Amino acid sequence: MSEAQAAQIEVSEIQGLVNWLASFGGTPEGGVTRLLYSDAWVQAQNALANKMQETGFYTYFDQVGNLFGRIEGTDCKDEVMLTGSHVDTVVQGGKYDGAYGVLASFLAVRKLVERFGKPKKTIEIVSLCEEEGSRFPLTYWGSKNLVGDYSPITIEGMKDREGMSFKQAMTDAGFPFKEYQTKKRDDIKRFVEIHIEQGSVLEKSQLDLGLVSHIAGQKRFTITLNGESNHAGTTPMTERKDAIVCAANAISELTAIAKAEYPSLRVTTGQLLAKPNVPNVIAGNVSFTLDIRHHESEILEAFCHRATELLSQLASKSGIAIDIDLWTDIRPVPLDTNLHDEMKKGLTEKGFKYTTMVSGAGHDAQVFGQHIPTTMLFVPSKNGISHSPLEFTDSYHLEIGVSVLMDYLYELAY
Amino acid sequence: MSEAQAAQIEVSEIQGLVNWLASFGGTPEGGVTRLLYSDAWVQAQNALANKMQETGFYTYFDQVGNLFGRIEGTDCKDEVMLTGSHVDTVVQGGKYDGAYGVLASFLAVRKLVERFGKPKKTIEIVSLCEEEGSRFPLTYWGSKNLVGDYSPITIEGMKDREGMSFKQAMTDAGFPFKEYQTKKRDDIKRFVEIHIEQGSVLEKSQLDLGLVSHIAGQKRFTITLNGESNHAGTTPMTERKDAIVCAANAISELTAIAKAEYPSLRVTTGQLLAKPNVPNVIAGNVSFTLDIRHHESEILEAFCHRATELLSQLASKSGIAIDIDLWTDIRPVPLDTNLHDEMKKGLTEKGFKYTTMVSGAGHDAQVFGQHIPTTMLFVPSKNGISHSPLEFTDSYHLEIGVSVLMDYLYELAY
Repeated sequence: MSEAQAAQIEVSEIQGLVNWLASFGGTPEGGVTRLLYSDAWVQAQNALANKMQETGFYTYFDQVGNLFGRIEGTDCKDEVMLTGSHVDTVVQGGKYDGAYGVLASFLAVRKLVERFGKPKKTIEIVSLCEEEGSRFPLTYWGSKNLVGDYSPITIEGMKDREGMSFKQAMTDAGFPFKEYQTKKRDDIKRFVEIHIEQGSVLEKSQLDLGLVSHIAGQKRFTITLNGESNHAGTTPMTERKDAIVCAANAISELTAIAKAEYPSLRVTTGQLLAKPNVPNVIAGNVSFTLDIRHHESEILEAFCHRATELLSQLASKSGIAIDIDLWTDIRPVPLDTNLHDEMKKGLTEKGFKYTTMVSGAGHDAQVFGQHIPTTMLFVPSKNGISHSPLEFTDSYHLEIGVSVLMDYLYELAY
Repeated sequence: MSEAQAAQIEVSEIQGLVNWLASFGGTPEGGVTRLLYSDAWVQAQNALANKMQETGFYTYFDQVGNLFGRIEGTDCKDEVMLTGSHVDTVVQGGKYDGAYGVLASFLAVRKLVERFGKPKKTIEIVSLCEEEGSRFPLTYWGSKNLVGDYSPITIEGMKDREGMSFKQAMTDAGFPFKEYQTKKRDDIKRFVEIHIEQGSVLEKSQLDLGLVSHIAGQKRFTITLNGESNHAGTTPMTERKDAIVCAANAISELTAIAKAEYPSLRVTTGQLLAKPNVPNVIAGNVSFTLDIRHHESEILEAFCHRATELLSQLASKSGIAIDIDLWTDIRPVPLDTNLHDEMKKGLTEKGFKYTTMVSGAGHDAQVFGQHIPTTMLFVPSKNGISHSPLEFTDSYHLEIGVSVLMDYLYELAY
């Protein structure tokens, strides 16, 4: 078998594993729906546990359903190098989001053990139970439990859209709520996550890998404008309190300001609801969202301050009452850049084209990154598409990710 | 009885009649729901017929349910001066829209006959069966049948929201569809309609009456923008095909252009629907309406041309596909201004404060105005509110309307 052939088999293995895991919760459209504690989720976690056991890893679940595959270190068994991602998906999501990170970690560790035997420090692969917040109204259930940010009170009274309580769903999936208590893991000394980019920065620049310097902070607002519904034909333009026009002016100006003056900032109105929302009546009421992200706290705060000032001015100018509700406020998280220097050396040697970049999306790495040194790697997403059955990363880049993750874990644990 | 007392009784009569007619289809909120061919509608038309008969008018219904009260002329009985408005309402509408015009016509003609006897030309009061388009997807069913614009084919297959066919509803209300055929009335030589303004122009200028010079033309478009749904966090501002931002830019610019350069023009986006319409996803698809009105065809056309050009440019600049669908296209209708000169003289003599104005709303007068000399009068609407239980006009202005209508019909028919 030539080296080229061997490489091809390796390349195929990670893509094959991604497809295998996607069979748990697979949809006719070629996507995956694997919500926390659903049957598909239980089957996927059990299948992953079996696969890790077959490989010789010691596996266990914690009280909330995070799955671990452990290779105990020969020297410092109480210092855990944790690597992995999440197993849950959005509704009709893709095969790669989360799953790739779990499977790449599994493959990387398996290969390390095959080649170099047991590590000095303990390595654990983790398949985090939940990140997306697609079933219940909370996110990072998996990672936040590991750093002690969640407790039984967090999910008190919480239900999914079908009315199933979080407690019951958890218990039914094999993780009795009665036994659950906050257990912060103090033995985890590092976290490494590899993930698809879910954007098109790498692909458009023809790069193989992204080293994530920061997870952007984000603030989400709901803006409610109360003007006056009125007849579209009889109300002169100067007499209107048109909430749609006020919202349009705000969205238009904020987008222009962001583009012109705040590089790297992202501002999005994804949701807009108008009332009464009929063609021949001036809309008296509009509510719309603003999702604002930047990796530097000062800039994020400055833009948000400017946005709220502008919104208030625009509303006041039109005689419209305004309510500004901030309902998500996540600070930017810098990841461990010291570690990146070691990485960069290895990458250059192998000829991989990479860049240092900010993650605009939230990830489990941002939860760990607030507590312990954390590294995050991105591989390209085809057309930048994610949360869709069209999500795709080719074998070549999946394999580069596994290879770099291997080298990195070797540096950390051997 | 002093003149003041007598005047007060007269003032009360029209308000009393409005309240009386509102009892047919009255809602707990104080509004009226009287949809075409509904029980409330049938009761209201029959009650009006009885009232006119008691007064000595000859009454009849035509095949579609328009109700007429006729006083035959002594000299030219085949030249009909028609006066009235519509009896149907929107869902949860007000007491005055349409109803006031029917009742004011009744009162004005009754008083004329009481004082002056029979007219030289025939006068008919009309309670038009339908104007609003609130039950079935068509408008002006009453007036358009009188000018020959509608025929049995118009309502073929048409159903209301409950699945009731137009034909069946019509038949059930006592107007058998089988007997219905197009019957243009050639004997109607004039139409005079009095109506509430449904806007706040008169009230804000402290005027008593509006003489309508034109019914504005209107075009309604639905604009569909197909950009690209994408992640709000990972997609750089410069890489977006954000349909909400494109729509916001368009609405903002078109409103500004209209205000700055097109006096009297009205442009309204009353409806906007975004997809997927979630806070953290760039909206790939937006559809929104443009309702554009002006009383001069050339200006209306020029603005619409400019709007569609601008929309196409904005979409193209953002890499967004655009579809522009024109689904309503009504030309402006000039009303009979020669007649207004006679009116003005009488008004000045009585000290009524009036203005000549454009109607931004559509009315039956615009249907008649395309065929015969037509006059339309407005009385003020409190706070400009219409299509609402809050619709109100005080007795003083209701009575001015009746008085002017009397003088006007006297000029025409005596």
